[in-house]
Amino acid sequence: MTRTVIESKTKTVIIGFDEPFCVIGERINPTGRKKLAAELEAGNFETVLRDALEQVACGATVLDVNSGAVFTNKMAEDPRYADNNFVEPPLMRELILQIQAIVDVPLCIDSSVPGALEAGLKACEGRPLLNSVTGEEDRLELVLPLVKKYNVPVVAISNDDTGISQDPDVRFAVAKKIVERAADFGIPAHDIVVDPLVMPVGAMGSAGQQVFALVRRLREELGVNTTCGASNISFGLPHRHGINAAFLPMAIGAGMTSAIMNPVRLPEMEAIRAANFLMNHDANGGEWIRFAKVLEAVEAGATFAEASAAATAATSGRRGGRRAR
Amino acid sequence: MTRTVIESKTKTVIIGFDEPFCVIGERINPTGRKKLAAELEAGNFETVLRDALEQVACGATVLDVNSGAVFTNKMAEDPRYADNNFVEPPLMRELILQIQAIVDVPLCIDSSVPGALEAGLKACEGRPLLNSVTGEEDRLELVLPLVKKYNVPVVAISNDDTGISQDPDVRFAVAKKIVERAADFGIPAHDIVVDPLVMPVGAMGSAGQQVFALVRRLREELGVNTTCGASNISFGLPHRHGINAAFLPMAIGAGMTSAIMNPVRLPEMEAIRAANFLMNHDANGGEWIRFAKVLEAVEAGATFAEASAAATAATSGRRGGRRAR
Repeated sequence: MTRTVIESKTKTVIIGFDEPFCVIGERINPTGRKKLAAELEAGNFETVLRDALEQVACGATVLDVNSGAVFTNKMAEDPRYADNNFVEPPLMRELILQIQAIVDVPLCIDSSVPGALEAGLKACEGRPLLNSVTGEEDRLELVLPLVKKYNVPVVAISNDDTGISQDPDVRFAVAKKIVERAADFGIPAHDIVVDPLVMPVGAMGSAGQQVFALVRRLREELGVNTTCGASNISFGLPHRHGINAAFLPMAIGAGMTSAIMNPVRLPEMEAIRAANFLMNHDANGGEWIRFAKVLEAVEAGATFAEASAAATAATSGRRGGRRAR
Repeated sequence: MTRTVIESKTKTVIIGFDEPFCVIGERINPTGRKKLAAELEAGNFETVLRDALEQVACGATVLDVNSGAVFTNKMAEDPRYADNNFVEPPLMRELILQIQAIVDVPLCIDSSVPGALEAGLKACEGRPLLNSVTGEEDRLELVLPLVKKYNVPVVAISNDDTGISQDPDVRFAVAKKIVERAADFGIPAHDIVVDPLVMPVGAMGSAGQQVFALVRRLREELGVNTTCGASNISFGLPHRHGINAAFLPMAIGAGMTSAIMNPVRLPEMEAIRAANFLMNHDANGGEWIRFAKVLEAVEAGATFAEASAAATAATSGRRGGRRAR
């Protein structure tokens, strides 16, 4: 059974065929979040820390940390800030130190800048997940040595120097090449988490079927865990959460073991909790029954984040109480 | 590709591997609905007709018609009414005539009384689905001749004289026996729709996995379509609709092609519409986009049944308009 082990200072999360679905919170990412980028530029980590706490309360067991910020004001003053190789390494280090100080969950170090990946690896406690390598030659040569040196698992995205293929067989072949190349570095398949790339079903009717078939093959033929940017499936469509909330259980049924996603959205998290139960990864439905109390609080008017935070606080309180006896 | 053809007077519905999921509306069933049973006893079909219209508006493409009523008052006056062989055949005939007069969708004739099944077959226009035969010897001998005589498809439930097995291999073997026995009568496998029996996941953690594996085997090894009483999966659990709404896409992803269910529930129908799209059974997402308008009306305060009825009326109007040009 394939098990990808990731760790924070004290917590271990297993991505695996026999484990509950691993939700990797995607919110800490300044790409497309101008307000967040401006805050980071000003050295303000309030939103980052709130997002960290909120995502963990809502059910993320791993947090993605992306340092891809553009510092527009600083750039105007100092041309070095136009280079992400200059901006991201110290930002990644600071993001990780700040987040680690407030939540104890494994992190996923997310950057296209190798220097930022290494800065993150140096700052991280435990065993983080690295995000990502692709089948592009330069990425393989830059990222796999880091994966080996720091003995961490890595997300492998199935595109290569020719781009993203619409043909799922080509995407499978790219994933296979990455797994083989990693093996040359002495990196085992269980430390590769493949993202087979999810196309929007609105643009390509076979997008869902492609992913389900690819996940089965990746699991059966390469023995690897899988992940995806789940919300891509519904890009451009109305009522996206309805599509996402059906896609996730179907992907889980096909064997998908993690996703990089927004855990603050109730429909998706409800679908994942139910799917865990239906996969027999929720003994006696204990997690579902706890989650049902959050759903009740939401029906009574709370936001999902509020209800989740209250439930987390109550559980910690009860646990504390038991410990104190 | 397995195709089970069912028909009303003018409409054809295909249950099949390459078709949208077939929703068989379960509401017209006096079992456990005392008020409905009392109405039927008084010869009042108002609720039946409202249920017929509402279920079709909400997305049922087939209506189950169950005649299993207990006529308590009549029974007190005339002991013959204690016998369902006396009560059900004329009731089934009347139910079907009433429903056929108001909606033009294929029906599913549902009774444990062979006389009621035959009365339904005689009253039905088109090609109804018969519900059901089991692996019990007396049922096989009573029901399969009717299936052959009227050339209709039949629901085959995977229990036999020993009851319902907890072992999915036994339930598969029962289904296989029914398919083989039907073949002896000259009934083809594509006219058998197997119900592999869904256990409650709250009582048996492997219940979901059992169904998904059974559906795949039934499809690959016997080439049959499948159905289920979908809501059984969540029996006894809080927030049942959340479990059902994840179960249905997962079952569809595994190859399930129909379910007998309540189509007036939005979460389940939303999940099925999304799953159809993700299975590439909704060309260009046309059905999803139409459904999104119903979701918008629900968000604005309408019930799902009201919003569905309004959307149906609007569509008929537009179609009428186009036809008139």
